[in-house]
Amino acid sequence: MIAKSRLESEADLYEQVETFFRSTFSTDNRIITEAIKRMLSAGGKRLRPRITLLSSAACGGNPVEHLHLAAYMELIHVATLVHDDVVDNAQTRRGVNATAVDYGNRVSVLAGDYLFAWIFKNVTSTYAPPIPNILSATLADICDGEVLQLRATGDLDLGVDAYVEVARKKTASLFAASAQCGAIVGGGTPADVLALQAYGDAFGVAFQMKDDLLDVTADERSLGKPVGNDLTERKVTIPLIEAMARGDRNFQSDVRRFYGGNDNAALPAIVDGIARQGGLAGTRERIAAFVRQAKQALEPIAAGTAKTSLANLADALLVE
Amino acid sequence: MIAKSRLESEADLYEQVETFFRSTFSTDNRIITEAIKRMLSAGGKRLRPRITLLSSAACGGNPVEHLHLAAYMELIHVATLVHDDVVDNAQTRRGVNATAVDYGNRVSVLAGDYLFAWIFKNVTSTYAPPIPNILSATLADICDGEVLQLRATGDLDLGVDAYVEVARKKTASLFAASAQCGAIVGGGTPADVLALQAYGDAFGVAFQMKDDLLDVTADERSLGKPVGNDLTERKVTIPLIEAMARGDRNFQSDVRRFYGGNDNAALPAIVDGIARQGGLAGTRERIAAFVRQAKQALEPIAAGTAKTSLANLADALLVE
Repeated sequence: MIAKSRLESEADLYEQVETFFRSTFSTDNRIITEAIKRMLSAGGKRLRPRITLLSSAACGGNPVEHLHLAAYMELIHVATLVHDDVVDNAQTRRGVNATAVDYGNRVSVLAGDYLFAWIFKNVTSTYAPPIPNILSATLADICDGEVLQLRATGDLDLGVDAYVEVARKKTASLFAASAQCGAIVGGGTPADVLALQAYGDAFGVAFQMKDDLLDVTADERSLGKPVGNDLTERKVTIPLIEAMARGDRNFQSDVRRFYGGNDNAALPAIVDGIARQGGLAGTRERIAAFVRQAKQALEPIAAGTAKTSLANLADALLVE
Repeated sequence: MIAKSRLESEADLYEQVETFFRSTFSTDNRIITEAIKRMLSAGGKRLRPRITLLSSAACGGNPVEHLHLAAYMELIHVATLVHDDVVDNAQTRRGVNATAVDYGNRVSVLAGDYLFAWIFKNVTSTYAPPIPNILSATLADICDGEVLQLRATGDLDLGVDAYVEVARKKTASLFAASAQCGAIVGGGTPADVLALQAYGDAFGVAFQMKDDLLDVTADERSLGKPVGNDLTERKVTIPLIEAMARGDRNFQSDVRRFYGGNDNAALPAIVDGIARQGGLAGTRERIAAFVRQAKQALEPIAAGTAKTSLANLADALLVE
């Protein structure tokens, strides 16, 4: 089978990942299986499994052999979401009730823990070093990033560099690991593995920035959560950082007042202000730079449909 | 070095585990390190590391080479405690404020996740299969058992078998893994490994029953939490199961009324009733049976000070 014919079945591959989630995935605990499946069936773009499968194909591997590894990448993401909803007291996630709302914080904490353990149990029984080590180090990075983000809540002096450091740990690390592990199991050279890891890292930072952007530009229906939710939680997002850096004194003091209190009445004005003061334009420039960086990282990879698909995934972050 | 001389330094070995917790243990995240160290410094009997070190010595290994593995067993326990306190809304733990009280639920969830990930990162980079797989399977069992326990809250029809199944998963699995991993790294034969795993399993069930017993017999100071706390949380413990099985109708209906409501005024009467109706005596018999089973499991192990120490640890569960 040549690389081209493998990628002609890209859509079929993703369907097989979905089939794994719908049918094959099951744990020994009925309540936990139910809570996780409900979250999986609520949707999601499955970008992490896609990147694993494309990275394995880009290195000459046969992606159909790595469907489970790809699925584990999504499941790590899902487990972090289950805990995030406890951490954030979120009401909805992907447009449906958060796990914590329907099952309670107790089951949510345990279900997330169980899912992490279940993934590592399966990964350690199926994959040789360094895959289990990469995944556990990635989970440590994600948690480290989330604690850093929590500490930075309301800190309007957070600069772009500190923001990128948090985004790299909390979000990009799992994209980087998805690409890196795909490249390893696909039989990539050390240079391929590093290139794809760098792709995942830059992709992930752009992805987080896009997520921040949508929080202030999209509507509640497409977001699956309220508009401006990040601002309500006093998170310091990249559109806000860009708007504060470019904005006038009135806007800056409005933002300082909003971030200094608990009153959300000014939220629509702050959202409008971010757009008027150039926060959206600044964020779009940042995203474009990381998308360029992601595509440049792919240079050492042999030309082919998998490489093209990876570049297209990055370009898709430019479309709102 | 012969087995005897190794075990003459048993106290020194445990001191080295404490030194690891006090000095060597550190993560990349300052807040998480602080939260975990505070919990470690609050004490605990370190039974899991002891069992790992003794099991390695009992199989002819040199326990000083396995101090980190032993410490990871305690850290898995600590990570589950950090999450338990979120799950249980606990106010105190080991006599000091619960992590969730001082750091908030958000940091507690993330600190527990980070610690799990940190442990797996270190275990997968240091230990060959099957150690990483045993530890992740154990964590899955612990969470499975905790969800089962949560579902059984207030269920006065829970029988002894169902109780033991929960205790086996939630508590005994980590003792069994501590013994099993110690035996493996100590170079034990397959029969040694199975024998020590069985020891840990029976020890762990007896340990959980003893924990349940102390909840209704000890004082708040020695418990580090309020007396009858399990009953306040409507957990179905072994002294209660034994008392209900042996008790008169008046006691049974008092318990059903207490477990059917939220009023804790009758707590002292229920605690007294458990003693009067034979719940403590029944529990002591159960503990003795599991302690005998733990010591019988050690039969295939070569005689020596490590084996004696393991038997003594089991016997210590008979002392209140």
